[in-house]
Amino acid sequence: MSDFLSVDAFRDALHAIGARQYHDLHPFHQLLHGGGLKKGQIQAWALNRFYYQVSIPRKDLTIMARMDDPALRRAWMQRVLDHDGLTQTGALDETKVGGIERWLRLTDGLGLDRDYVRSLDGLLPATRYAVDAYVNFVRDHSLLEAVASSLTELFAPAIHRERIAGFEQNYAFANDSTLSYFRKRLDEAPRDVEFGLNYVLTNARTAEQQQQCLRALRFKTELLWAQLDALHHAYVTPNLIPPGAFVPDDMTPTEYRR
Amino acid sequence: MSDFLSVDAFRDALHAIGARQYHDLHPFHQLLHGGGLKKGQIQAWALNRFYYQVSIPRKDLTIMARMDDPALRRAWMQRVLDHDGLTQTGALDETKVGGIERWLRLTDGLGLDRDYVRSLDGLLPATRYAVDAYVNFVRDHSLLEAVASSLTELFAPAIHRERIAGFEQNYAFANDSTLSYFRKRLDEAPRDVEFGLNYVLTNARTAEQQQQCLRALRFKTELLWAQLDALHHAYVTPNLIPPGAFVPDDMTPTEYRR
Repeated sequence: MSDFLSVDAFRDALHAIGARQYHDLHPFHQLLHGGGLKKGQIQAWALNRFYYQVSIPRKDLTIMARMDDPALRRAWMQRVLDHDGLTQTGALDETKVGGIERWLRLTDGLGLDRDYVRSLDGLLPATRYAVDAYVNFVRDHSLLEAVASSLTELFAPAIHRERIAGFEQNYAFANDSTLSYFRKRLDEAPRDVEFGLNYVLTNARTAEQQQQCLRALRFKTELLWAQLDALHHAYVTPNLIPPGAFVPDDMTPTEYRR
Repeated sequence: MSDFLSVDAFRDALHAIGARQYHDLHPFHQLLHGGGLKKGQIQAWALNRFYYQVSIPRKDLTIMARMDDPALRRAWMQRVLDHDGLTQTGALDETKVGGIERWLRLTDGLGLDRDYVRSLDGLLPATRYAVDAYVNFVRDHSLLEAVASSLTELFAPAIHRERIAGFEQNYAFANDSTLSYFRKRLDEAPRDVEFGLNYVLTNARTAEQQQQCLRALRFKTELLWAQLDALHHAYVTPNLIPPGAFVPDDMTPTEYRR
């Protein structure tokens, strides 16, 4: 059994998980940000990551459905609004456009058809499993663990800044429209994570609860990582696209023979 | 909307899914059966596949919990008994030893510690997501779809025969003990699938139900495939082992640096 950690030691232990296994370390992201990917590979990333984006509100609503405290629900609701938006597509007030619409601007800019992206038809099955594992986790674990799993936002601003700079430097598709999701998250994530971190530091009152929170955050880093493993396997090395998954125009489908 | 298929056309459509995307086509299996893997890679496969083996009874019990008909439950119960066994480890009646124990004889023969295998500590996260997706599927879909998802057993005897022959020809660890799981499945799977196939052919009474069954079987082939994608990515090419996952003695942990 682990000892109960001081607040500072507990916070450090949460940060150490990011240092060890946040997905900015993944070779796929290093290729993506460093200009090492072809357009079709970036399309595959954006298409698969869309399923994560549309599932985040399902995840947050699942968490909220388990909260007894209206004040807590109100604080958490902002996340859902950030993703779903406060307005329809094409409305005049740009600040009210949600994260999912902003992500579709990225897939637009990459030349993907919106109906195809929304259909989820070309997803890697492994993307679906990893994302669904997140939604299921917050349903099946304690509220404290569900909140702790969101703390990858501690590490997100750095990767968003790196991504914006890398895209602007390396890719012709980078512009205000395609980068709008990441720029907006630079404002939102620090606000969200301050709330979540305070909640976890305050409500993990036993050594066991602290360990549960650390495992929950590690679980979350694993599912982000697993999504990139699947993309890397299918679209980079060894470039084996599973039967039925998206095939970019600049690649040929993998033929599997007995 | 698809047309209603004759029994023969429906059966052919089910078989066509196996021809297109059953995991015998996956390069990892071709390496495994052809003698192309090192011991550590085979350990990684057996270790990860153990989670599938121990989860199959959870899947079958989830299906059974949804059956109204005791006769149907009795027929399905045999699957659980096949995996869990009718006796404790080390009992005299060898025929009563279950599939999970037989799988542990394989991991024994590969030099893996049983407690480590059972702990699930070294699993690839993607293995867990794919296997859990199967258990969740049979909980969340119709009983007909749950039964249809089991029909990969149509394609299993061929891969088991190929595996037994390939192991015997290529690997020193192949013997009666390590191969006992696969030999037993050669008897069990055809019996199971005959029941499941009859159930599906009889109970898919509309074109929509037939399409649901085809999607369920495709879903199942995808999750078998995704497990091999994850193994191939981590332990073959590009051989990037996710942080925290099993590292065979004959490999070094992957170092990830910012």
